[in-house]
Amino acid sequence: MSPNPGLPGEFALIARYFAPLARGFPGAYGLLDDAAVIAPAPGCELVVKTDAIVGGIDFPPDEAADLVARKALRVNLSDLAAKGAIPRAYMLDLMLPHSIDEAWIAAFAAGLAQDQAEYGMHLVGGDMSATPGPATIAVMVFGETPVGKIIRRGGAHAGDAVFVTGTIGDAALGLAVLHGTMRNTDEEHAAFLVDRYRLPRPRSNLGPQLIGIASASVDVSDGLVADLRHVCEVSKLGAMIDAWRVPLSDATRAAVTYNPKLVATVLTGGDDYEILFTAPPAAMQAIVEVARATNVPITRIGRMVTSSDDECNVSVIDVNGRPLALSSEGWTHF
Amino acid sequence: MSPNPGLPGEFALIARYFAPLARGFPGAYGLLDDAAVIAPAPGCELVVKTDAIVGGIDFPPDEAADLVARKALRVNLSDLAAKGAIPRAYMLDLMLPHSIDEAWIAAFAAGLAQDQAEYGMHLVGGDMSATPGPATIAVMVFGETPVGKIIRRGGAHAGDAVFVTGTIGDAALGLAVLHGTMRNTDEEHAAFLVDRYRLPRPRSNLGPQLIGIASASVDVSDGLVADLRHVCEVSKLGAMIDAWRVPLSDATRAAVTYNPKLVATVLTGGDDYEILFTAPPAAMQAIVEVARATNVPITRIGRMVTSSDDECNVSVIDVNGRPLALSSEGWTHF
Repeated sequence: MSPNPGLPGEFALIARYFAPLARGFPGAYGLLDDAAVIAPAPGCELVVKTDAIVGGIDFPPDEAADLVARKALRVNLSDLAAKGAIPRAYMLDLMLPHSIDEAWIAAFAAGLAQDQAEYGMHLVGGDMSATPGPATIAVMVFGETPVGKIIRRGGAHAGDAVFVTGTIGDAALGLAVLHGTMRNTDEEHAAFLVDRYRLPRPRSNLGPQLIGIASASVDVSDGLVADLRHVCEVSKLGAMIDAWRVPLSDATRAAVTYNPKLVATVLTGGDDYEILFTAPPAAMQAIVEVARATNVPITRIGRMVTSSDDECNVSVIDVNGRPLALSSEGWTHF
Repeated sequence: MSPNPGLPGEFALIARYFAPLARGFPGAYGLLDDAAVIAPAPGCELVVKTDAIVGGIDFPPDEAADLVARKALRVNLSDLAAKGAIPRAYMLDLMLPHSIDEAWIAAFAAGLAQDQAEYGMHLVGGDMSATPGPATIAVMVFGETPVGKIIRRGGAHAGDAVFVTGTIGDAALGLAVLHGTMRNTDEEHAAFLVDRYRLPRPRSNLGPQLIGIASASVDVSDGLVADLRHVCEVSKLGAMIDAWRVPLSDATRAAVTYNPKLVATVLTGGDDYEILFTAPPAAMQAIVEVARATNVPITRIGRMVTSSDDECNVSVIDVNGRPLALSSEGWTHF
């Protein structure tokens, strides 16, 4: 159904804006059939993931349409990257309110075009419908890994080191800037942080290189501590993070220096879309080489430990070796 | 994110209601990882489809949660059936308003459980989020066909007969009953029609049997005429439907007898979720046998014809051989 009586019909919109995104993927049948066909390359299997974003919840209601499209794709691509999968295709359900006009759809499709070229994917199917609610975009991505080689959450061992890509906390502070709750940030820093919130940078070039190196992996979307806890729970281990080793951008370091309580936001805020992974200490040299080859910074931030109980706790340690505890005002000493 | 501050958290809800639906599908990893793994059986490829349903648009806002779940699955299963694919797995994005309580989620999951058992599928992944809009459910299904055997829209030939399963028009009239725009319908008939609207019956047992028999196929969701036109456009043909051959239920036949203008609703209303397919006349015996073996009524309703122009028209013919034309009041003679 076309989302707006003032718009061309659904089939006209698909032909004009979405069918071009399916070109080059034979099994998409030009979006002219009921379904698409996909088969993994010989020796590979498909890695599949879906995540949806909702206007007013996951992006500002007035966000630029191309950024909405790219965020919808990228939050899914980040999961594929963490699993070591190479992106191949995606499907898309678009639920759009009547306020959407054709220019919005054109910009949205342009955002898809830009990112599917950057990440090497094609659109293979989807659905468009009207909604009385906010714009809602559900994306399903298809990636590929060699059979049995997906990097899972549950493969970590006690003694493995914990690594993270890029920098942590920028997106959470960017959201705080948008909400007007962060002050004393210079303009350049504020713009950097907001951009990190608006447009995730999934580590798609790095992820597949971690196959054979990482023992467990997860993308950092719920927050560094929460996502490491996911690894702990499935691996039945605990973990310790050295707070001072967590990599920070200049903007985030400046913010935390001004207000140390922001450390809690940095470590738990989420939306980082970096890769958190574990590996045995012997893998250190291979990791250095992968970081160099992909030009992605990788930082060792902690270690996996046995869990004396079933709590699978993630402890955060300060530079003096003392544990920090989360309170409603931020991280404090016990 | 949990959709409601009064509910258990997202992970608790997943563990309680959704993880059980992943049992028996190893690549779903118990819904404890970022993504799932799926590979087609040897000699097969995956057929993938996504469709979303929105409260107040595709189902009444107060619809029972288990029926919402089953409708969300079944509108997708109907496409798989029309392509000849056997269902294997599905993913699910749930966008839920704050008014949803845990009983709703329990009933929704029970609906999924019932249908995934009936159709032989497992849940392999998904996402749950809050929305300020109506309940919105996006489903992606994975089916399987032998490599190269998917039944497409574009394979029809001039001279092929046109067939349809089941009966047509019931759901559209059922929606009219719900809207209060259909009168003089006895209670039993009204209940039958409404049920046909609320719960599609995808022809999943029949679809795979049509491989090697049907030259083209589509599921009837937009409406009999519109969906046949889809086949015509991709096959670059026209089609003629004999209006009096279109199979009607007793309830729909009674309604049309009372108000002949309802023929337009029947032929164009949609939501039938039957299979419309074409086949060469020589396939007639095989089709009779498939109908008997699957216990699905199949009716021959027309034929594919060459298209003298690019219009790919679908003509509807009355019992005297005269074409009917759609007007705002229904189908009339030219």
